[in-house]
Amino acid sequence: MERLETVAGNGLLDRRAFLRGGLAATALTGYALSRPASADTLADGPWSRAPGEAVPAYNLPSRYEKNAVRTLSNPKNEPRTSHARTPHQLLSGTFTPNGLHFTISHAGNPDIDPEQHRLAIHGLVKRPLVFTLDSLSRYPLVSRMTFIECGGNSAPMFSNEPIQASVQALHGLASCAEWTGVPLSALLEETGVDPRAKWLVAEGADAPALSRSVPLKKALDDAMVALYQNGERLMPGNGYPMRLLLPGYEGNMNVKYLRRLKLVEEPAMSYYETRTYSQILPGGKAYRFYFLQEVKSFITQPSPGLALKGPGLYEISGIAYSGTGPIAKVMVSADGGTSWAQAALQEPVQSKAFTRFRALWRWDGGPAVLQSRAWDAAGTVQPTRAQFVAERGETKKPPSVLGFPNQHFNAITSWAVDAKGEVKHVYA
Amino acid sequence: MERLETVAGNGLLDRRAFLRGGLAATALTGYALSRPASADTLADGPWSRAPGEAVPAYNLPSRYEKNAVRTLSNPKNEPRTSHARTPHQLLSGTFTPNGLHFTISHAGNPDIDPEQHRLAIHGLVKRPLVFTLDSLSRYPLVSRMTFIECGGNSAPMFSNEPIQASVQALHGLASCAEWTGVPLSALLEETGVDPRAKWLVAEGADAPALSRSVPLKKALDDAMVALYQNGERLMPGNGYPMRLLLPGYEGNMNVKYLRRLKLVEEPAMSYYETRTYSQILPGGKAYRFYFLQEVKSFITQPSPGLALKGPGLYEISGIAYSGTGPIAKVMVSADGGTSWAQAALQEPVQSKAFTRFRALWRWDGGPAVLQSRAWDAAGTVQPTRAQFVAERGETKKPPSVLGFPNQHFNAITSWAVDAKGEVKHVYA
Repeated sequence: MERLETVAGNGLLDRRAFLRGGLAATALTGYALSRPASADTLADGPWSRAPGEAVPAYNLPSRYEKNAVRTLSNPKNEPRTSHARTPHQLLSGTFTPNGLHFTISHAGNPDIDPEQHRLAIHGLVKRPLVFTLDSLSRYPLVSRMTFIECGGNSAPMFSNEPIQASVQALHGLASCAEWTGVPLSALLEETGVDPRAKWLVAEGADAPALSRSVPLKKALDDAMVALYQNGERLMPGNGYPMRLLLPGYEGNMNVKYLRRLKLVEEPAMSYYETRTYSQILPGGKAYRFYFLQEVKSFITQPSPGLALKGPGLYEISGIAYSGTGPIAKVMVSADGGTSWAQAALQEPVQSKAFTRFRALWRWDGGPAVLQSRAWDAAGTVQPTRAQFVAERGETKKPPSVLGFPNQHFNAITSWAVDAKGEVKHVYA
Repeated sequence: MERLETVAGNGLLDRRAFLRGGLAATALTGYALSRPASADTLADGPWSRAPGEAVPAYNLPSRYEKNAVRTLSNPKNEPRTSHARTPHQLLSGTFTPNGLHFTISHAGNPDIDPEQHRLAIHGLVKRPLVFTLDSLSRYPLVSRMTFIECGGNSAPMFSNEPIQASVQALHGLASCAEWTGVPLSALLEETGVDPRAKWLVAEGADAPALSRSVPLKKALDDAMVALYQNGERLMPGNGYPMRLLLPGYEGNMNVKYLRRLKLVEEPAMSYYETRTYSQILPGGKAYRFYFLQEVKSFITQPSPGLALKGPGLYEISGIAYSGTGPIAKVMVSADGGTSWAQAALQEPVQSKAFTRFRALWRWDGGPAVLQSRAWDAAGTVQPTRAQFVAERGETKKPPSVLGFPNQHFNAITSWAVDAKGEVKHVYA
């Protein structure tokens, strides 16, 4: 009989042994509710005794999942930005279903008629061209799983005191989907590129006409004009009928409702790239540009709001990703970073996509601090919070929105478990 | 200047050359709508001039996508089986979003309270056990992308005359999702298995109490009790709150609303395995069991209902899958099988999952017959329809539901393109 081997402090166990049948009779999980004399003693629910409901044309979640929704910062659609955050703590797997992909809209979701929508590619090109959705759909398409993350995701973690909030509130402005569309390089091949062009200015068709400058090099690398999200047409909150996709780059650069791509010599220094999404540093200076979403991870289960139900075995599970490429390794700690165990990564590990990590943990009922730390294939490691704030600064609680560092937080997140099994956000 | 090379008859071209920038000035696709003097001439839609709509808690498709839904065989929920078919012709990418995953319900969708639902594992086990959704959620989880296909998918193609219908009507009872759950082997490790046990009888909690016999060997291989579908909890039409997942096996064996797993010595010969889903052969005999969904592919674009808009370049795209493992190769023909070109497969190619294939085609405006043919990694090749019906038989149009062969159709599908660009279903 194989025993579950401890692989790091405070109860981290060898998950591989578990999965290959490492449960000796003495190591039963105790998860089962009961040991019935007979399964015939199961009570019938009403759903076992009468026909069910009509099958709908479009599946929606059960009414019992009414909490598995995005939290809204602006439910009355007042004249300000709306945030809808992904409920990571209620999800599992490696990407985000379309109903729950995060949205940030600076003026609500536009109701765009795809037949009337146009995309123009102009400026420093040889042949300016206008495309319809239908004409784009005729190109050879490619699919790729990739995350999109708002530069302001995790901004509450700049606070000098840990804000008590769910993983949805802290990290819910990142999601992952399979996007299918036309490589932007193919469209630029059609228009031709004037050798003077070094940047593109991408502009959306919605009322804010959000525009961002994109290096031509990125546009010719892995950029895409995305037409489908997880197999179906884009969601209205995610850019319907088309968006720019810049894998690994700051969320709002992936311009939704894409309407114009203008090739230019210099960046436009547009409103959204110089003000809202600028990264201000402790000395008052700012990075001119900060495109990349760097290596990051966080534990989704357990997490605040998901209390542990007594000592015993638990799976620690979370998400890791990097804007530079695939995740190489995730380490997990149950003792606040004193010792670490390597987590299992769900295959296939895809470049610039969410990677689900999992570890096995026996909680002894005592205090614990859970952390995850990710490495990407380029060798970059997720910083500790102390390392991060030394370079980027922190804010007084509550963080102010402007004039303080509030972008691109990617340091380690720590969850403390108390004797009751309650999970709290801590700095450790 | 590179030219687009012909790689098979009737206009099949080298897609790789296209993607690596093979468009010479003389080879422009002509997809673009126009060449404007200035992109500033783009007209503003109303969505560019006023704020949009409130961002909802759960994303739903645009109202302009009202046709991208499942077709319903029983919209009034009369006392018979309901089929909801996936609109493959309107989707792209490698899997099916949750709103559009196919459903077959023999008595509607049950409205199951997950707190009250129980799963019992009993029969020839050492320790019969009962599990709740919460207790299952504590196990180490695994995720895998896998298709599910009804044994009766493509049944209209047994007809001795080609039935004119969309790819949704012909092949819409197959879908693919990422399922996350507990390996069944881990649960059987907990209950222990009596050496006499060779089969499991799996039963659902909905009113029909559909039950199917599953070989223990499969249960200990890659079977899963699935709790999540594409990241969120299962859809009500796909087994909420839990279903059995048997990758590659006939759809209804993946028992939805999973309630009991009884280990037994012999298969139960239950109603649904001996009647509804039996495979009757030309001589009147039937296979005793036919679990595997064999290697298959079909073209989704172009397909009936998606007319070509004049001669020129088109992408031929479709889905391939096999219940035995990964797809190894898909060949595409534009001349009814006389010559073939190898299609590109979207990476990563995953075992027992949808694989998107793509090929580039220049339609000259003349007649064409488009076909796809798949090979799996085990070396099995998708049969021609002539090969298939020689072994399995065919029916007179329209096919009868019972007493005739109507299960496990996996032969080649042919789409004929006429001079107007209309696409028809043909046997070729």
